[in-house]
Amino acid sequence: MSTKNQANIGVVGLAVMGSNLARNLASREGNTVAVYNRTYARTEELIKEHGTEPVSGGFLAAETIDDFVASLSRPRTAVIMVQAGGGTDAVIEQLAERFEPGDIIVDGGNANFHDTIRRERELREKGLNFVGTGISGGEEGALRGPSIMPGGSAEAWETLGPILRSIAAIAPDGEPCVTHVGTDGAGHFVKMVHNGIEYADMQLIAEAYDLLRRVGGHSVDELVEIFRAWNDGDLQSYLIEITAEVLSQTDAETGKPLVDVIRDEAGSKGTGVWTVQNAVGLGIPVSGIGEAVFARAVSSKPAQRAAVQRSVLGRASGARPEPPTVPETFADDVRAALYASKVVAYAQGFDLIVAGATEYGWELDLGAIAKIWRAGCIIRAQFLNRIVDAYATNPDLATLLEDPYFADAVAEGEAAWRRIVGIAAASGVPAPGFSSALAYFDALASERLPASLIQGQRDFFGAHTYHRIDKDGVFHTLWSDDRREIKTEPSTH
Amino acid sequence: MSTKNQANIGVVGLAVMGSNLARNLASREGNTVAVYNRTYARTEELIKEHGTEPVSGGFLAAETIDDFVASLSRPRTAVIMVQAGGGTDAVIEQLAERFEPGDIIVDGGNANFHDTIRRERELREKGLNFVGTGISGGEEGALRGPSIMPGGSAEAWETLGPILRSIAAIAPDGEPCVTHVGTDGAGHFVKMVHNGIEYADMQLIAEAYDLLRRVGGHSVDELVEIFRAWNDGDLQSYLIEITAEVLSQTDAETGKPLVDVIRDEAGSKGTGVWTVQNAVGLGIPVSGIGEAVFARAVSSKPAQRAAVQRSVLGRASGARPEPPTVPETFADDVRAALYASKVVAYAQGFDLIVAGATEYGWELDLGAIAKIWRAGCIIRAQFLNRIVDAYATNPDLATLLEDPYFADAVAEGEAAWRRIVGIAAASGVPAPGFSSALAYFDALASERLPASLIQGQRDFFGAHTYHRIDKDGVFHTLWSDDRREIKTEPSTH
Repeated sequence: MSTKNQANIGVVGLAVMGSNLARNLASREGNTVAVYNRTYARTEELIKEHGTEPVSGGFLAAETIDDFVASLSRPRTAVIMVQAGGGTDAVIEQLAERFEPGDIIVDGGNANFHDTIRRERELREKGLNFVGTGISGGEEGALRGPSIMPGGSAEAWETLGPILRSIAAIAPDGEPCVTHVGTDGAGHFVKMVHNGIEYADMQLIAEAYDLLRRVGGHSVDELVEIFRAWNDGDLQSYLIEITAEVLSQTDAETGKPLVDVIRDEAGSKGTGVWTVQNAVGLGIPVSGIGEAVFARAVSSKPAQRAAVQRSVLGRASGARPEPPTVPETFADDVRAALYASKVVAYAQGFDLIVAGATEYGWELDLGAIAKIWRAGCIIRAQFLNRIVDAYATNPDLATLLEDPYFADAVAEGEAAWRRIVGIAAASGVPAPGFSSALAYFDALASERLPASLIQGQRDFFGAHTYHRIDKDGVFHTLWSDDRREIKTEPSTH
Repeated sequence: MSTKNQANIGVVGLAVMGSNLARNLASREGNTVAVYNRTYARTEELIKEHGTEPVSGGFLAAETIDDFVASLSRPRTAVIMVQAGGGTDAVIEQLAERFEPGDIIVDGGNANFHDTIRRERELREKGLNFVGTGISGGEEGALRGPSIMPGGSAEAWETLGPILRSIAAIAPDGEPCVTHVGTDGAGHFVKMVHNGIEYADMQLIAEAYDLLRRVGGHSVDELVEIFRAWNDGDLQSYLIEITAEVLSQTDAETGKPLVDVIRDEAGSKGTGVWTVQNAVGLGIPVSGIGEAVFARAVSSKPAQRAAVQRSVLGRASGARPEPPTVPETFADDVRAALYASKVVAYAQGFDLIVAGATEYGWELDLGAIAKIWRAGCIIRAQFLNRIVDAYATNPDLATLLEDPYFADAVAEGEAAWRRIVGIAAASGVPAPGFSSALAYFDALASERLPASLIQGQRDFFGAHTYHRIDKDGVFHTLWSDDRREIKTEPSTH
């Protein structure tokens, strides 16, 4: 609790995210917020613009890091909101030199969870608590209520929990969107997967839009209506909602839909890449996220795109494939394909969370994670209630696709999903998200996979050995000898 | 040159790969090969079994590392053939303590190129040459002629080049399959990409096999004939050849095709994972390799597969999708889809090599790399001559798909490729490699991509800004204000 000249929480770094988070904190009863920025002018600006907002405790502006630390009540609790990377380490060092055992340093940036694990270990050795926390929802979320994913110790959570609960987004059932995700880097890991799922979700929506427009022949105005209608059903989500908003925007200068004026080269900030890198390292096939990351990368290669378009247009036959006859149900089929593909993307994302928990020794509550994504964050959606229900019914699901609700959802959409993937292939409209999700489902559903042939090839050229379906042990065929099969040890090279 | 009791080259680590490489070296005129293994018994075994083979210089067996170093003529040149990882560092340290400036340490293991860059830098500071080299072709290749991909300095290549040329595989045109790939980690980087392409190639072959069998209804005996026939055409390659060999193998115990007895869970050794991790980090969409890595991972999740199969079989409707009517040309269509998808996988792999060269400052000759893969290694194929030709005609291709030969090859197969992806989707047979390759091609060939919508979404929720097609600058729409567009700076958060 803060006394007159003491703050119960501090924020270091007052760019937009930090300022907004500090304002959010100051607006909640019981909080006095110490604020510090490397250049004091930025701090003064915050106080000038927002110091008179109706707040219960208000701000304590610190000119130096020493003032900042001195203004914090014990246990000192400071949230770092600076650019992820080296800047974070520098601020951590400044605080760690001045903090005392039991104090709490929170990193609210988009840190790589490997860094968070390292920092937590280093600070724990000094008796300090370090909490890496994911904060999702962008600038608006930071100000009005983000989804918050903190890691760190249970001890730190005792102090931090009530503060974070006071500023988090509120789910439709009244629960704040924050939970103690797990120890050390668990929060930043889960935030990374959140962002990876966000990539997949956006890619699937983009494919739906592209097919409806280029194959279905819908105008942008019609698309606005379609996405608005979808937002009233199973697909209800922030991303579907803003898709309609973006599509409804007319460019003032040209009078065209803004989406036709924006250059079609998608950027990225790194968390999608991290998700794929960690997933393949952990053996988790996140093809939905992978194809989304790949699709953004392809779009950002203008020289390659121009070269292929020149060679395609230069062909004797010339033309691109003709779209096949489009069924009357096309828009509904696309909706079904989108929903089924989305189920797959989330199933893969939750598999990655499970694998991370196993690898890094976290006890994660999958239902609780789905719950805190229901408001505040970019992937917020009704859909997440179905995931909460699924893990409530069976916390040990081998995959979300096993849950009866999701199994039925896929079964209902399956025929349409297959039609849409076929139509996309026939039309020349890329749908890597839809098709890879279907292939993933079909692989899981196949009684036998051609992986047996791959094992045979690997044994042939590299003596990598194989297992048999009918008995235990590790086997190798003497391919370059008399082709006898021998029982052997697993290959180590 | 070696004198009576001096060796011009040494090998450390005499497991199968090391022994075979030492035997290969000893069989070439002018070489005397010092051999050392941590346990001397292994060294004695090599000498006993192979010391009397017709060799020009023979072996010098060293009992200790000191003996080994003393037996090498200057500049001392030693090839380390131990398990990649910590073991390699230990052996490097032993040699580096005893070697003198100008001497050469070669790592012939499957090292991560990041380690190779670090080791090269550390040893260069001591005046030693360190050469990380890819060696492909498995045990047979090591013995009879591998494809060799050395990095390291030009100085080291002067000594090493003639030795490696003497033991490398010989391409059909008589050229040895070795070239100085580039400095420091270039060799191990290129070997990594080679292995990544190998993953993609094997996955595509596995999909072709699966479709021919489950949709085309071909027996395994017929498949042997089909793959043998394919090996006489454009698809001629070691991997197609051994596919026929593996399929022709009957299990002695059950009388069934061996491929039906091998458990269908594909393993991996890490280089595919590294390829994907580095590719996404460098912004290169290697979807062919990615889907291959994902497909192996899916196959190795028996609990998930069983769970989905239970839920699929438990459906009211029950049955899996019926394969659609299969065209008469089905096997030819599959062949065309395989070839077009393979072109895409190689185009992506070469893009990754280009990106690696830019990132790490290597001057790589893409044609020379294609040349040294024509024999000795796992992906050896006639096809590589087409890549050699393409880069000879235009070293600055934006993508291999721009080259007229490959553009035509894709155009010829395109209709069949689209049919096969559609049939796979309709049939429930997973073809993630075929379909992601087609989606990649279609993305490059699309004049407009829905990436513009993704940029609009990112600007909406994160103020990530966008570019316009009609003027320079960076723009942001004030979505939560009056929705004016402002010219701004690129987002940094």
